[in-house]
Amino acid sequence: MNRIVTLTTDFGLKDPYAGAMKGAMLSIARDMAIVDITHLVSPGNILEGAFILLEACRHFPRGTVHVGVVDPGVGGERKPILVEAGDYLFVGPDNGLFSLAARVLGMKRAIELTEKRFFLPEVSSTFHGRDIFGPVAAHLATGTAPDAFGTELGKIRALDIPRPSAEEGGVSGEVIYVDSFGNLITNIRKQDIDPLSGAGCEVLISGALLKGVRKTYAVAAIGAALALIGSSGYLEVAVNSGSATGALKAGVGEKVKVRPIR
Amino acid sequence: MNRIVTLTTDFGLKDPYAGAMKGAMLSIARDMAIVDITHLVSPGNILEGAFILLEACRHFPRGTVHVGVVDPGVGGERKPILVEAGDYLFVGPDNGLFSLAARVLGMKRAIELTEKRFFLPEVSSTFHGRDIFGPVAAHLATGTAPDAFGTELGKIRALDIPRPSAEEGGVSGEVIYVDSFGNLITNIRKQDIDPLSGAGCEVLISGALLKGVRKTYAVAAIGAALALIGSSGYLEVAVNSGSATGALKAGVGEKVKVRPIR
Amino acid sequence: MNRIVTLTTDFGLKDPYAGAMKGAMLSIARDMAIVDITHLVSPGNILEGAFILLEACRHFPRGTVHVGVVDPGVGGERKPILVEAGDYLFVGPDNGLFSLAARVLGMKRAIELTEKRFFLPEVSSTFHGRDIFGPVAAHLATGTAPDAFGTELGKIRALDIPRPSAEEGGVSGEVIYVDSFGNLITNIRKQDIDPLSGAGCEVLISGALLKGVRKTYAVAAIGAALALIGSSGYLEVAVNSGSATGALKAGVGEKVKVRPIR
Repeated sequence: MNRIVTLTTDFGLKDPYAGAMKGAMLSIARDMAIVDITHLVSPGNILEGAFILLEACRHFPRGTVHVGVVDPGVGGERKPILVEAGDYLFVGPDNGLFSLAARVLGMKRAIELTEKRFFLPEVSSTFHGRDIFGPVAAHLATGTAPDAFGTELGKIRALDIPRPSAEEGGVSGEVIYVDSFGNLITNIRKQDIDPLSGAGCEVLISGALLKGVRKTYAVAAIGAALALIGSSGYLEVAVNSGSATGALKAGVGEKVKVRPIR
Repeated sequence: MNRIVTLTTDFGLKDPYAGAMKGAMLSIARDMAIVDITHLVSPGNILEGAFILLEACRHFPRGTVHVGVVDPGVGGERKPILVEAGDYLFVGPDNGLFSLAARVLGMKRAIELTEKRFFLPEVSSTFHGRDIFGPVAAHLATGTAPDAFGTELGKIRALDIPRPSAEEGGVSGEVIYVDSFGNLITNIRKQDIDPLSGAGCEVLISGALLKGVRKTYAVAAIGAALALIGSSGYLEVAVNSGSATGALKAGVGEKVKVRPIR
Repeated sequence: MNRIVTLTTDFGLKDPYAGAMKGAMLSIARDMAIVDITHLVSPGNILEGAFILLEACRHFPRGTVHVGVVDPGVGGERKPILVEAGDYLFVGPDNGLFSLAARVLGMKRAIELTEKRFFLPEVSSTFHGRDIFGPVAAHLATGTAPDAFGTELGKIRALDIPRPSAEEGGVSGEVIYVDSFGNLITNIRKQDIDPLSGAGCEVLISGALLKGVRKTYAVAAIGAALALIGSSGYLEVAVNSGSATGALKAGVGEKVKVRPIR
């Protein structure tokens, strides 16, 4: 049975691009299972794509091929690559899109895609999702070994991703993603604040002081803000039945501080 | 062959949530057919989710498993359930989301999901779609019998859904859903107004008086409002090649009256 | 193995319509592969649907069945049809939606769908996607021959699609599609301007003068406009890491001129 292939792109859902890419893939492997993760990454926003890909990819079966196409440099100098990390294969541009997943899951190797026989016969300068990445993923899905696609690379491009820091007995971090419910997801992980949780802690963000790290949204009053550990293991600021990004006027980059209750 | 599983949620189409849920399901049953009904239910809007689910679900093959996740109370007191109604199985939170389908299709039994061996090993407090409902649906799809998942419940939570009422020789109702074309779908069914249709009837809504119940959009002039029985069997107010919600400034909750022509 | 069926509609992604249509199709052919091209064609915009369908369809495997439903005249006089063009079958309303694909791929024959045994038992007046086109596509996918569905038509309805014209030593055309990146796609094809490209040419649009036809977005400065041949072979005006429709205040219908550099 063929491997599953997932797609994470900024193509949008109206244009013919995602459909054309799927057509090219199905022309190579007719009975492939293609699963959309999203096509609504903000155009050209590599960090956002990297975060979504990391959070979704790790729930798929071992061996799944994850294609990522957020590719503002298409047709330029950036290399087309294949990355093996954790139990998965990633295919797309070498612009940092896979750097989060590679760091968290553990990168095994990276290969520059140089073998043109796995591309479409004619490669455009502006749509490598259809002409290179989709076809390579389809060939991977049918069982072609990764090293057939090109030559090994020493490393891949990293993103400059903010990391939380210990500070004055607490932990400082920032919002790295805002989801469609308006929840503010920070770069502070559960294990970063576990030492603080015994005696109780409080969270400061955008002028608000939130007492404790709660279990779920519904423990707060309707419309009230709260901090909790979200489903991905990151500290998250939410509003019960509302939008934290709206209520707190905070977005990506907003500073967050967790400290022991004084 | 595995059963089909459909998804109806308010997860949106950008975030990693729908992808993570599909990954968790495919990790249990690799060759399952997952069909998205929608992920764009308005956040937390249970009535809207219940209506969309009812309208879409009944066209699927017998035995299809329909997962619904509109779950503002996730992690709180509401129970995770499995409902057997008509020819289908429904999986999700017991908050009214399945009450419309259960009423219309005929509820056979409901089961509280208590058997943790069918959940993901670690269950978060905020994402039961990925950790409970998706996995249970995947196990149902592969043929596990409903009663393996927990203990029978006497009843499920109902929604307070408005019903049409007879009044002064006519029928009064209200708009319960506005679709993306701007059509106003009411809670008045074809059979509620059949007795009026012989001599002809008229529809009052938002200050407009519409003569007759027409066959299709194109019988009205471009830009003109009309009433018709929509594809789901409900009275619907539309504008030919336009938006009734815009033209009539009416939305969910707007009162509608059907009466014999005077 | 069943044929692939693709869907291109203006149903939107929230309402139950696309889900209901898929359910009806899967009830006919349980293991059919359904691929969404888009459900976000602007409501009733036939030209837009025709362009998206053309661009996406031609990358699919030979024999794929493409369903198109942009159907403001549903339930009226327009005929339901099946078109054989190039390597594909198209199913939907005879309102021009398939005229672009038929012209470019080469129409072989068109059939009016008259055989009601391939429709749902009850056909509504407002939702032929679910009741006629989806079911016919499902029957085609399982191998029923095209001529079983009805009687041959001499021709299908054409769209009044603008064509580029030679003018004063150059070529004049217009924008026919704006994609979600804000790229302006014109009706001028690569071969229309190849004769001009030797000595170099310039592109005039909305008061801007763009030198040359470039290879890809990244050759321009960030935020700068450029002209290039897009992935579909049409002249396209883009802004590197930005939106041309926003920067140039230009949309569908905007005039474009390509001329030799003076």
